Amino acid sequence: MREFILKASKAFTKMFRLNDLPGAGRMDLVCRCVTNALWLSHALRRDIIFHAALEGPDRPPKILSFDGEKLVGVSLDERNIASNICIALEKGYNLRSNEEIELPSGIKIAKKSFEQLVKEKSKTTQLFYLHPKGKDIRKVEFTQNVCFILGDHLGLPSATEKLLKRFNAQKISLGKIEYLASNCVAICNYELDRILELS
Amino acid sequence: MREFILKASKAFTKMFRLNDLPGAGRMDLVCRCVTNALWLSHALRRDIIFHAALEGPDRPPKILSFDGEKLVGVSLDERNIASNICIALEKGYNLRSNEEIELPSGIKIAKKSFEQLVKEKSKTTQLFYLHPKGKDIRKVEFTQNVCFILGDHLGLPSATEKLLKRFNAQKISLGKIEYLASNCVAICNYELDRILELS
Repeated sequence: MREFILKASKAFTKMFRLNDLPGAGRMDLVCRCVTNALWLSHALRRDIIFHAALEGPDRPPKILSFDGEKLVGVSLDERNIASNICIALEKGYNLRSNEEIELPSGIKIAKKSFEQLVKEKSKTTQLFYLHPKGKDIRKVEFTQNVCFILGDHLGLPSATEKLLKRFNAQKISLGKIEYLASNCVAICNYELDRILELS
Repeated sequence: MREFILKASKAFTKMFRLNDLPGAGRMDLVCRCVTNALWLSHALRRDIIFHAALEGPDRPPKILSFDGEKLVGVSLDERNIASNICIALEKGYNLRSNEEIELPSGIKIAKKSFEQLVKEKSKTTQLFYLHPKGKDIRKVEFTQNVCFILGDHLGLPSATEKLLKRFNAQKISLGKIEYLASNCVAICNYELDRILELS
């Protein structure tokens, strides 16, 4: 299983206007990451789960999970993904701690924090996060279950890095250039695809 | 110089509704390619030009060119890019053959065909197109000026492939998986960045 966790530190946890996704705490960025994690040309990646940890106003924290195996009727354009997120946020607005619901679209929403999710994943999964000083992704030995952790436009704060180190997350690098979070997702997928093709 | 040409065979050449980009001949796909070609985290790639050859109704053909050196006031979300495209299509609606205009955003619109653009580029630039049976991108020797040619959701028809061969375009491959056009753009950028880092 391949998973991604995006720490979306400003992304709204209430309904938002579909005509202004950047104004909803950079929901546009969240949507692009979903697209790049899950869609191939004419197919969904069935072996990938993408999680967005939304930490913006006004009911944080919330985890949205998009499982490529379960998604139904969601298109890959920003507006469509955003409209599905909006429905999830409405339905999950009043969830209590650790409660979760699954929508007809297959999207899950949970009242859970980024820290809780990372802790859960650390038990079964090899954790990675991107850092300019990390080990070159082409030299990393990946196991069967991997999870890539990404920051939004504000990056991962140092407190989060400390947390990730505590859970043995490895720092990896895509080179010297700092890419958009959504492109980091696309490139991690690509690098793993290349490794799997060779194995 | 690094350039991309997307053959957007259905993308509208008239104004369209910003709330339905997929319905405008998959304008969402065009916008995602623009984002992935030109944006880094907190920066524009100044050394890249992205061209979209729009061939849909009702005033084809049109070439939109986004030069990273010139763009002003354009954001990277699909809706913002689409709104800038819409303005360009309105201003350039009645252009005559080979006429072009540049908008305050830095976007250029020309009444020109995909074939004409490819022919022009072939004189100064190494042309590549993606094909599952192409040479592995990691084994290609790139020169200074490169141009990647991509198809939309319908791919490149065989007549186009013949045209590209006539202009000595080389077939290259990103592996066995067929990626979204926008992710092909992101991956080509990444592979070239890696090569440039080593050189």
